[in-house]
Amino acid sequence: MKPLLYVLAISLVLSTGICPAQTNQPPIEDFKPSELNQPGKQYPQVNSERRVRARIYAPQAQSVLLDIGGVKYPLRKGDDGVWIGESQPQDEGFHYYQLVIDGAQVPDPGTLYFYGAGRWGSGVEVPAHDRAFYELRNVPHGQLRQVFFYSKSTGTNLRCFVYTPPDYETNLSRRYPVLYLQHGGGEDETGWGNQGRVGLIMDNLIAEGKARPFIIVMANSYVPGASFGFASPNQPIPTNTPYSRTIAGPGGRNYNPAAFARMLIEDLIPYIDSHFRTLADQPHRAMAGLSMGGMQTRSITLANLDKFSHIGIFSGGSISTTTSPTWLPSSKRSSWCS
Amino acid sequence: MKPLLYVLAISLVLSTGICPAQTNQPPIEDFKPSELNQPGKQYPQVNSERRVRARIYAPQAQSVLLDIGGVKYPLRKGDDGVWIGESQPQDEGFHYYQLVIDGAQVPDPGTLYFYGAGRWGSGVEVPAHDRAFYELRNVPHGQLRQVFFYSKSTGTNLRCFVYTPPDYETNLSRRYPVLYLQHGGGEDETGWGNQGRVGLIMDNLIAEGKARPFIIVMANSYVPGASFGFASPNQPIPTNTPYSRTIAGPGGRNYNPAAFARMLIEDLIPYIDSHFRTLADQPHRAMAGLSMGGMQTRSITLANLDKFSHIGIFSGGSISTTTSPTWLPSSKRSSWCS
Repeated sequence: MKPLLYVLAISLVLSTGICPAQTNQPPIEDFKPSELNQPGKQYPQVNSERRVRARIYAPQAQSVLLDIGGVKYPLRKGDDGVWIGESQPQDEGFHYYQLVIDGAQVPDPGTLYFYGAGRWGSGVEVPAHDRAFYELRNVPHGQLRQVFFYSKSTGTNLRCFVYTPPDYETNLSRRYPVLYLQHGGGEDETGWGNQGRVGLIMDNLIAEGKARPFIIVMANSYVPGASFGFASPNQPIPTNTPYSRTIAGPGGRNYNPAAFARMLIEDLIPYIDSHFRTLADQPHRAMAGLSMGGMQTRSITLANLDKFSHIGIFSGGSISTTTSPTWLPSSKRSSWCS
Repeated sequence: MKPLLYVLAISLVLSTGICPAQTNQPPIEDFKPSELNQPGKQYPQVNSERRVRARIYAPQAQSVLLDIGGVKYPLRKGDDGVWIGESQPQDEGFHYYQLVIDGAQVPDPGTLYFYGAGRWGSGVEVPAHDRAFYELRNVPHGQLRQVFFYSKSTGTNLRCFVYTPPDYETNLSRRYPVLYLQHGGGEDETGWGNQGRVGLIMDNLIAEGKARPFIIVMANSYVPGASFGFASPNQPIPTNTPYSRTIAGPGGRNYNPAAFARMLIEDLIPYIDSHFRTLADQPHRAMAGLSMGGMQTRSITLANLDKFSHIGIFSGGSISTTTSPTWLPSSKRSSWCS
């Protein structure tokens, strides 16, 4: 299944790094609104140096900071009650950030919101030199589908997102390989589809003949489990969860690997294979993930080599021929180690 | 097509009103986290009186207000830098709201975010007596699909959401009626699926045998058009729009009715009929909308009675037998007025 080679490239969207030059020069005044701003909102803006400029009206505030890339930059107050200021140059691509108003950490009301670092917060896009890779173009588009399914192993209704390729709705006799694609720590099942733009990337690759069509399934790693739970008895596992809710966890970085693995193997894969036109066998089933999702991929696929044939680990550890997966049943070890 | 009767009920989610009693009594201390909070977040909370309690850490702030239902309620500061306070009782159901920190209007970092009033902002759920109607239950679920399509009339790629019923993926020979369902002013194509919970409502109605399955299409009324546009030349119509972006407008309340009508008739309906298993004729095509969406429904359907057979107007004007749609071609007038 060659397409996985291209999926590997997807992770570069999140990890591309150009070391920013630190400078005290005034910024070049060619700022433009970030493409991740809410409709009609003019700020934040980004200039050709890749600096981010934030702006907010806070007439009674004593201090406003732009908190991005691990650094808090002070904003300047104008006579009109508007605070404005810039960051040092940032890496290309997507960044989570927030504002700090008199000590209160809040999202910037100018941007769209994305789930990362265990919260829904602001995002800003620093234009990347290779952004055509993930742009919305006039090509045939697949669909990103929100799917609820009942998980017997956790006793709850869970949510995942499923990308189906452009010809899925018009070629009703075709069946497709499936990639299970997991988010990183502190992210959730919305990450690959939103800030990760997985559907747009796939649409573009398919249109260019660089990928064969396949289905991608993105679930939440933070499933309810025995060693896991909500923060207090006041926060029960929700039974009436609306669409945009991340339903499966507290957003923290603790999770129960066994509970997720069991949910994936016992609940999600059977659900997908019975509700989508999949090629439901090991040669056509892949798993990949970023960071924590890569670690999950490593442990789950090596323990289930009868179910997965293709493995993608993005910043989640490595597999070498000297790896000794002693926790792997000996019956499966040979097929992996050979 | 009887299901429209039930769709009418959907709008009650947004409009149910119980006049709150104004009182200066201290609140009853049975607050629980809103079900629209981010995972693990304990605030905002709601008590049995339907009061909303907000809480935020803002150690240097001079003033923090809870802005909900058209009223700004002052929060009280504790020695720990945490501000806390309550609203008067609110109506049952979903509410948009925000915090005001030293004059800065910002989303509450505790909640999920919803698009309304021309912005992505906080939402809080005051439990409704009939909330089983829109709860996530263990019933067969349909899918809510994000769909990009090229709109020739506007020259842009646009986004809509499409609900497909539970048996759509398992009964591949079946074709379905279609409802085009529009949001209200200042909202967008995400509104019915997120805060409107249209998919959960449909899943529940179908499971109870109260609705026959049909497809629902939700587009953005703020399409680019001649008398419409982005707020400044710095904000071009986006060409590389990510998934969660509202791509079709500035979020203001101005829109171009003719541009939307043309896009719907010339671009969207043909796209849906060629990419979904629809019953692509007038007897099986409906349109409905809330408020501004109701006004659009009224004008578009009455001018296109050869395309729509069922009409739902929710707080968007009315149609009576004495209505004289002089702007309607005479050939169509009789079929409507009879």
